[in-house]
Amino acid sequence: MREALILAQRGVGRTAPNPPVGCVIVQVGTVVGRGFHLKAGEPHAEIFALREAGERARGSTAYVTLEPCSHHGRTPPCADALIAAGVARVVVAALDPNPAVSGRGVEKFRAAGIAVDVGILADEAVIQQAGFRSLVTWGRPWVVLKYAMTLDGKVATLSGDSRWVTGEPARTLVHHWRNELDAIAVGSGTVLADRPSLTTRDIDGGRDPVRVVFDRRGRTDPGAAVLGLGSILITGLETASALHEVRGTRVLRASSVQDALPLLGSLGLSTLLLEGGPALIDAFLEADLIDEVRAFVAPKLLGAGQSPLGAPSPKLMKQALDLSDSQVQQVGPDVLIQGRLHAIPTLERSR
Amino acid sequence: MREALILAQRGVGRTAPNPPVGCVIVQVGTVVGRGFHLKAGEPHAEIFALREAGERARGSTAYVTLEPCSHHGRTPPCADALIAAGVARVVVAALDPNPAVSGRGVEKFRAAGIAVDVGILADEAVIQQAGFRSLVTWGRPWVVLKYAMTLDGKVATLSGDSRWVTGEPARTLVHHWRNELDAIAVGSGTVLADRPSLTTRDIDGGRDPVRVVFDRRGRTDPGAAVLGLGSILITGLETASALHEVRGTRVLRASSVQDALPLLGSLGLSTLLLEGGPALIDAFLEADLIDEVRAFVAPKLLGAGQSPLGAPSPKLMKQALDLSDSQVQQVGPDVLIQGRLHAIPTLERSR
Repeated sequence: MREALILAQRGVGRTAPNPPVGCVIVQVGTVVGRGFHLKAGEPHAEIFALREAGERARGSTAYVTLEPCSHHGRTPPCADALIAAGVARVVVAALDPNPAVSGRGVEKFRAAGIAVDVGILADEAVIQQAGFRSLVTWGRPWVVLKYAMTLDGKVATLSGDSRWVTGEPARTLVHHWRNELDAIAVGSGTVLADRPSLTTRDIDGGRDPVRVVFDRRGRTDPGAAVLGLGSILITGLETASALHEVRGTRVLRASSVQDALPLLGSLGLSTLLLEGGPALIDAFLEADLIDEVRAFVAPKLLGAGQSPLGAPSPKLMKQALDLSDSQVQQVGPDVLIQGRLHAIPTLERSR
Repeated sequence: MREALILAQRGVGRTAPNPPVGCVIVQVGTVVGRGFHLKAGEPHAEIFALREAGERARGSTAYVTLEPCSHHGRTPPCADALIAAGVARVVVAALDPNPAVSGRGVEKFRAAGIAVDVGILADEAVIQQAGFRSLVTWGRPWVVLKYAMTLDGKVATLSGDSRWVTGEPARTLVHHWRNELDAIAVGSGTVLADRPSLTTRDIDGGRDPVRVVFDRRGRTDPGAAVLGLGSILITGLETASALHEVRGTRVLRASSVQDALPLLGSLGLSTLLLEGGPALIDAFLEADLIDEVRAFVAPKLLGAGQSPLGAPSPKLMKQALDLSDSQVQQVGPDVLIQGRLHAIPTLERSR
């Protein structure tokens, strides 16, 4: 299953609205087939693995990171393919989060006399599938807030300078995230102040995330580097979209982040990296739309400066928002602390 | 030497103005004597170790965490005692930081035909001796800034509530620090707002640090829990001291932290734990009098709230104060990040 998860990882950021999935077929202790889902419309992981295994699939054990599908979608059901190939046992990391189909794949195997185990490395699989699970359950992308602050909690000087809070290794890691998340979002203030391109740089085989600018008041220059083909402008204004669309920017109408996120979900974007600025972050926080936080802390002191966020600002410290499953890791000279504000949806603990 | 450092640790917080020192005497692979410095006026580590070793010290190797003294202080020179006992080899972690005596102990051994090695586990020894080194070199205590903030950099809510930012394990660790540092300092605002006692709690064999209140304007109630015997009030006011002294509080006159720290040094206080509030921390930062930072980061988000500090507030991020030798460690659910703003004084790199 470990290998299946590693295979699945190769599809992360490429498969939306489908999940990244990996499959390994083992015949008497030897791996005879490997597959992962490449992108929506392409065959599923199980099919690639069965093709490689060929006749050796008969009597084998198939390890799959997500319950094989039992219904006809863009491709025929993988459960049927595994049964037809004569697989003797199926090991599944996590069940499908969609209540309409969850457990159906497992039932199909059992009805065909195939042994099924569920739950092997389930936590890791669920984390890898967070975007897919969010899309299926909530109809919106899984939102990851990212920021970098000094050891006294500042993301920029009073005059707005933030180059750089963190060192090279942290900034490289952020480009890996851009490569793996479906979309990246900033507010129009950040576009005006920093003129970012929000592309993925220096990653072998990397691709750019869909760049999303939240611009309620339509302030963004249509020629801004961040806009163009593959970018989305979200605005509450009825006017001015034609100018933006000339360069290929897709314009979506929404006057709040609550209204905007389902639109992004309907485009099949399963994960969103929220990079700022503070006003946009606060809007997400106030709407309870941040699922995960990844914060870099740099070992330096700034003093007065800009804070990463201004909401929710409760009266008592004990009312602060707790992150669950928090983890810490050193990244060059800096420290990365990450955790979740929401549980990743599974049928056991969906919200 | 590792064992000598562990022995020395037992004296930390008890030996000022002397350094904590450990000594282990080894005869043909067997430890025959152990000693550490208990407190000023008591015999040094080497003397305790020689007493235990007795005749077995002849031909032995002595491991000492600090260069043995060569001059008559409150006790006779340890170098002479080691020579008289017939020690064959002396291994020293770090040289004495006092330019008037540094290297003299080593010379005495060499003159007596005893082999000497210097520099074994020197970094760890120097860290353990930071307070002594600061006192000898700068005439003031080594200042350790401590605070606890949320993952968005806030130490309290806007209304001032800070109970609690961190979990139990972090708060217990702070009591260990209070037990090991000579003094603890807060500003009068913190005394007014929080009514702290600043004592060491729940540590076996613990003792309270000397409690220091910086109160330029003489606002502190003489009956405050933090005052009394073993406490110091630092004020710029000429009046009102009699009231404070009634309960045993020592009153020192200083109108700035620059003036106050040498007074604390002259009382033999070698380490100072600075706990806040923000105004006092900023005064220390502006005077460049913070040597080390220990910051807890709790995995929670608060939004608007109080920041740990307001100085130095440079215009550019690259002008932020960098911490050197920073380290990270998980403490229960929280993260401790520590580092130094100043190098610990040694003769090689004193400032």
